[in-house]
Amino acid sequence: MADYQHILVERAGSVVRITMNRPARRNSLSEDHLAELLDAFRAAGASDATGIVLAAEGPVFSAGHDFGDVSARDLGGVRELLRLCTDLMRTIESVPQVVIARVHGLATAAGCQLVASCDLAVAAESAGFALPGGKGGWFCHTPAVPVARAIGRKRLMEMALTGDVVDAHTAEQWGMVNQVVPDNELDKAVDELMRRATRGSAAGKALGKQTLYAQLDRPEADAYAIALEVMAAASQLPGAKEGMAAFLEKRSPVWPD
Amino acid sequence: MADYQHILVERAGSVVRITMNRPARRNSLSEDHLAELLDAFRAAGASDATGIVLAAEGPVFSAGHDFGDVSARDLGGVRELLRLCTDLMRTIESVPQVVIARVHGLATAAGCQLVASCDLAVAAESAGFALPGGKGGWFCHTPAVPVARAIGRKRLMEMALTGDVVDAHTAEQWGMVNQVVPDNELDKAVDELMRRATRGSAAGKALGKQTLYAQLDRPEADAYAIALEVMAAASQLPGAKEGMAAFLEKRSPVWPD
Amino acid sequence: MADYQHILVERAGSVVRITMNRPARRNSLSEDHLAELLDAFRAAGASDATGIVLAAEGPVFSAGHDFGDVSARDLGGVRELLRLCTDLMRTIESVPQVVIARVHGLATAAGCQLVASCDLAVAAESAGFALPGGKGGWFCHTPAVPVARAIGRKRLMEMALTGDVVDAHTAEQWGMVNQVVPDNELDKAVDELMRRATRGSAAGKALGKQTLYAQLDRPEADAYAIALEVMAAASQLPGAKEGMAAFLEKRSPVWPD
Repeated sequence: MADYQHILVERAGSVVRITMNRPARRNSLSEDHLAELLDAFRAAGASDATGIVLAAEGPVFSAGHDFGDVSARDLGGVRELLRLCTDLMRTIESVPQVVIARVHGLATAAGCQLVASCDLAVAAESAGFALPGGKGGWFCHTPAVPVARAIGRKRLMEMALTGDVVDAHTAEQWGMVNQVVPDNELDKAVDELMRRATRGSAAGKALGKQTLYAQLDRPEADAYAIALEVMAAASQLPGAKEGMAAFLEKRSPVWPD
Repeated sequence: MADYQHILVERAGSVVRITMNRPARRNSLSEDHLAELLDAFRAAGASDATGIVLAAEGPVFSAGHDFGDVSARDLGGVRELLRLCTDLMRTIESVPQVVIARVHGLATAAGCQLVASCDLAVAAESAGFALPGGKGGWFCHTPAVPVARAIGRKRLMEMALTGDVVDAHTAEQWGMVNQVVPDNELDKAVDELMRRATRGSAAGKALGKQTLYAQLDRPEADAYAIALEVMAAASQLPGAKEGMAAFLEKRSPVWPD
Repeated sequence: MADYQHILVERAGSVVRITMNRPARRNSLSEDHLAELLDAFRAAGASDATGIVLAAEGPVFSAGHDFGDVSARDLGGVRELLRLCTDLMRTIESVPQVVIARVHGLATAAGCQLVASCDLAVAAESAGFALPGGKGGWFCHTPAVPVARAIGRKRLMEMALTGDVVDAHTAEQWGMVNQVVPDNELDKAVDELMRRATRGSAAGKALGKQTLYAQLDRPEADAYAIALEVMAAASQLPGAKEGMAAFLEKRSPVWPD
C-alpha cells in the first residue's frame, strides 16, 4: 500500500476499504486528501478486488472542500482543485468494482457528492446530507451534479437552495441512499449488501456497471444504441458462456474471472 | 388473427390483450416468441383499438431471454436477437394505443424490461421484479435502459448489481409500477385503469403518447422545442376543436376519431 | 408597479408576491394574463428582490389555457400563444430569485406546469394536480415537459394519459411539491421555506440556480463540464470570498450582494 497521510486502506478478502481519516478536519477534502483518495481508488480499481467501501473516521463523514485550502486560490487554482475533485468522483463511477458508501454522521457539499457518486450507499440513522453552499457564499455547483441524478428535481432544488440537512430516512425515501440502519448495524449491512452486489462474473459486472453510467441521462434511443452493442459483445465473454451453460445444465457456475 | 404458437391475442371492445403463453418455459423470450410479440404489437398498433394489455399465462410473468436460444449464438447472432428484442420494446412505446402491463409473478431481465417499456403497469401482490444478470454471467444491459428511466439511480444500481428481486410494493414506491392490488383484483384494476387512460380523443392521445417519449431524457429547451410545435399543430385536429367547443358550449364532446 | 388587469403584484421586504387574480375565469391563462405574468416575472427578476412567490386568488390555482382564447386560433395563432406560455415558464426558471409556488386548489394543464416550473412548491391539502388534456381533445404536450422532469416516468404517463387529479399528498410523495400543509398554514409554510431558501449570498445563489437548470437532463460528463467551470469562476466572487473568510475566522458573514 502507498504511504498515505489522510486515508487508511485495508483489504479484507476481495473487498478494499478506503477510510477518510482526517477527523480533526472533519474529513474535509483538501488537495492532498483528494489526491490520496484518487490514488487509492485508482489502485483498488486496478487490483483484483471486486468491491470497494468508502468509509470515514470520526463524527463527520466528510464536510466537503477545505476552505483553508480554497480561499487563497485564484481562478486557475480553484479550477485545478475542482478538476481533481471531479476526477475522483468520476473514477469512483468508472472503476470496475462495486463501490458502496458507508455513511455515518454528516456528509455535506463534496462529502455529499461522494455519497451520490458511489454506486450504492448505506446510511446509519445518524447520517445527514446537505449541499450547504446554498446558504453560504459558494454554491454547491459540482456536488449538485450527481445529487441531481439520484433524487427528484424539486428535492434537489430544496437541498441546493436551502442548504439544510436532510436526515437519513428522508434521504432513503428520496433515493439518495439504498438503506438506513441503526448505527451499530452499519458494518453488517454494508457487508451484506456488498456480498449481494459482488456475486456472479466479475468481468461481466464490471462491463455492466460502466455501461450503466454510459447510458444514463441520454435519450432512450441513444441509450439502447450503447447497451445493445455492449450486451451482444458481452454474450461472448467466458463468464456469460459459463453462466448460461451452468443454468442450462442445472449446476452451479464457476466464474472464470 | 395470425396463427401464433407462443402467444394469445384477444380483442374485447376496443382493447387488445396480448398474452405470453409459454408457461412451461416461464414465458422466456426466444426468438420465435419475440417475433410473435412484435408482430402482435404491430398488428394491434395498426388497428383501431385504443388500448393494449400485455399479460402472461402461468406462474411467471416472463423470465427474460431463453438461454437455450442464446448460448450457442455468436456475436452476430446475439446482436440479431437483441435487435429484435429492442424493436419489440420500442414498438410498445411507439404504438398509438395505451399499453398496460398486467403483471403477476416474477418479471425478470427482459421480462422486467417489458414492464418498464409499457406505458403503465399494474402489479399483483405476487409480482416481483429483477435484473438477475448482475448475479450471473451476462449483465442486463438493455433491460436496464427503460428500468433506469422509471426508477431512481441508486435503486437501479441496486437492482442491476445485486440481481435480487424487488417486491411489488417496493416497485410501486420506486415508480416501476403504477399500482399494486391483491392478485384476485388484478383484472379489475387493469380494466379500470385502461378505462381511465383511454378516454378522450384517440388521435390526440396517440400524438400525446409519442411526443412524451420523444421529449423525455432531453435538456428542457430541446424538449420544449419538440412539445411546443406538436401542441400547436395538435390544436388544429378535429378532436382538439371538438373538445374545446364542447367545453365552451357546456356539452359532452363527441370524439371524431 | 405596472397597471395590471389580471394579476396582483406586492412586495414585502425582499420578496415579491405575484398573484393570479382572475378567479371568475379560474385563473385561466389567456394571452393577456400570460403577458402580464411574464412582464411581472421579468420586472421582479430585474429587481433586487431575492424571492418570488407565485400565488392565486379564488378557489382554483389555475385551470391552464383559456379555451375561449384558443379555440378560434389557427396554427400560427396557437403557436404564438404557446411561445408566450413557454417564455413564461422558462423565465420563472431563469430569473435569479428563488421562486416558490404557493398552491391551493386545483392546478391543471398549464396551471400544473406553472407549479412544476417554480423552483420550489408548497401545497395546501386542498391542492390537486392534473394534466387533463389526456382525457380531452388537446393533449398536455408542453405542460408535460417540466412535470416529466419532477416525477417518475410511470407517474407522468398516468397523469398524462388518464388526466385524473393527483391529490396533494401523492404529489409530495412523487416529488411534484416539496411540502403539504393544512390550508390555514400555507402562508406560514411558504414564508418559512422562503426564509430558508434565500439565506446566503444572493449573487452566488442566482448563479447556482441558473447552473442547476443548465446541467440537468444532460449526460453527467456534460453536466460536470458546465458546473465545474462555473464553480471555479464563482469562487472568485465577493460573496464566496466573504463566506470562506467568515467561516475560517469563525464570524458571521456579511454578504456583499
